[in-house]
Amino acid sequence: MARAIDVPDLIARARQGQAAAVARLISLVEDDSPALPEVSAALAPHTGRAHIVGLTGSPGVGKSTSTSALVAELRRRGKRVAVLAIDPSSPFSGGALLGDRVRMSEHDTDPDVFIRSMASRGHLGGLAGAAPQALRVLDAAGCEVVLVETVGVGQSEVEVAGVADTTLVLLAPGMGDGIQAAKAGILEIGDIFVINKADRDGATTTRRELRTMVGMRAADDSWTPPIVLTVATKGEGAEEVVDEITNHGDHLRSSGELTKRRVARARREIEALALASVQRRLGEFGAGVQELAVQVEAGALDPFAAANQLLGASS
Amino acid sequence: MARAIDVPDLIARARQGQAAAVARLISLVEDDSPALPEVSAALAPHTGRAHIVGLTGSPGVGKSTSTSALVAELRRRGKRVAVLAIDPSSPFSGGALLGDRVRMSEHDTDPDVFIRSMASRGHLGGLAGAAPQALRVLDAAGCEVVLVETVGVGQSEVEVAGVADTTLVLLAPGMGDGIQAAKAGILEIGDIFVINKADRDGATTTRRELRTMVGMRAADDSWTPPIVLTVATKGEGAEEVVDEITNHGDHLRSSGELTKRRVARARREIEALALASVQRRLGEFGAGVQELAVQVEAGALDPFAAANQLLGASS
Repeated sequence: MARAIDVPDLIARARQGQAAAVARLISLVEDDSPALPEVSAALAPHTGRAHIVGLTGSPGVGKSTSTSALVAELRRRGKRVAVLAIDPSSPFSGGALLGDRVRMSEHDTDPDVFIRSMASRGHLGGLAGAAPQALRVLDAAGCEVVLVETVGVGQSEVEVAGVADTTLVLLAPGMGDGIQAAKAGILEIGDIFVINKADRDGATTTRRELRTMVGMRAADDSWTPPIVLTVATKGEGAEEVVDEITNHGDHLRSSGELTKRRVARARREIEALALASVQRRLGEFGAGVQELAVQVEAGALDPFAAANQLLGASS
Repeated sequence: MARAIDVPDLIARARQGQAAAVARLISLVEDDSPALPEVSAALAPHTGRAHIVGLTGSPGVGKSTSTSALVAELRRRGKRVAVLAIDPSSPFSGGALLGDRVRMSEHDTDPDVFIRSMASRGHLGGLAGAAPQALRVLDAAGCEVVLVETVGVGQSEVEVAGVADTTLVLLAPGMGDGIQAAKAGILEIGDIFVINKADRDGATTTRRELRTMVGMRAADDSWTPPIVLTVATKGEGAEEVVDEITNHGDHLRSSGELTKRRVARARREIEALALASVQRRLGEFGAGVQELAVQVEAGALDPFAAANQLLGASS
């Protein structure tokens, strides 16, 4: 039998900033715990304060190092920070993964930095279903800035933008990254572009190419995405990136865009949860659907009627 | 306002083999018509007789030419035949597409050959939701063999096997097709392998490679997939392929595998229709979900409660 969870106590302790309570709540999200609706309801009044910043970019551009440099700069400004690394391809809890992230270890003993990785593969709602819940935990726990990055590659690179207020797109000189960015659709989602490893050849060419491509975005956009050059391993440029994050946050609030983005995000989350709930119920009704399939095969029932019976019986 | 549809009359005429009535019923499937549940219920008692044969293979192996050669051979044996070409990437009704299929034109005036292409992209249930319904129409219309092929490439190549009783995998010599087949997972789905363009160099090598790979499939399989060499442009080998299709049909019936496959297919169809129905209802409730998202964004409601309200209101 599952250990009973004292949700109000957990949430009270998380709101006091106790890392163990925050970690436990995120594990509940990761495990798709039956306690989640109660957790979610209790968190709701305490959310909406954190600035959610998504980091996206191809492997090799220096995402982890950049994240670490941004954490250092945000701490210098006295901000409480969280890092949420989402691994959409892994069914395992990601504790081990942080072993690789050597450069993050400098923040390990800082009580005002919460670092956590999370698997989303097993989650019925996928990244879109799991990430917003974990973010809400970190938000309620008083984290002022939450950096979200995905581990690995693919579609999820774009998906992460869907859960963020501000999206940073990281590139590196050369490698035809400009073209790659255009192909992957990350040009459209970038609020701030960062060209990391800017001490390498080709950084200015990449910036020029990128500026042209960004210039072709919708002209009625009231925000022109800045392009910042960084050398994350040396912390160079981190200050400017954090300035731009702050600028973008101010722009989101003054333009009304923040609420618009967050409502759209809530809507996607509600729909993902609703569909996941239906899929779960259909799955639990396994024996029933098999029985219906036998009747359809025999011509005694048609598939539409069977689908209706399935929905009726499982609701 | 939509023209009223006299479903019983349409079905009576389709069962008499009137091509116009069959075509109209398949258009209803393609358009996801509200009359479909009624059509589906009326068809149910008249289904289960047709042998559904899926044709799959990479572009360039000669799928259309092979289909045409098989139709000719089946007609020689006096069978009533239908060809259903599914285009999963096209939102358009596929009438135009058949213009390319020059070699099919020899059957155009044969009243016992029904040829139809169908788009599945707009369909909420996708190929898995749309194809079985169209196949049921052709089955009830008295077609004894229905050849199903997909137009275009990709995932759907494997998906087509899910709607067929017997799956033909077409290959051509060279081009590393053997390896490609293994990668695409079509080795597992082939009941009969056809090496077309067998007058080209490399046909025997391809057969040898294929035999080795097919030999590695599960040993408890009571059916060993035959490998047939054909030259579809000359009609060579079509007789042997049709013999093997008949053999496989006999095997399916005597082993009980036919019912097992069809029950599994019915189950997938029921689940696809049930989920599509829920998605549709959520979509129709657009204004409602927006309202809920605004409340969630404001912290007045949590997303789980919102998802429940959405499901409650839309059911």
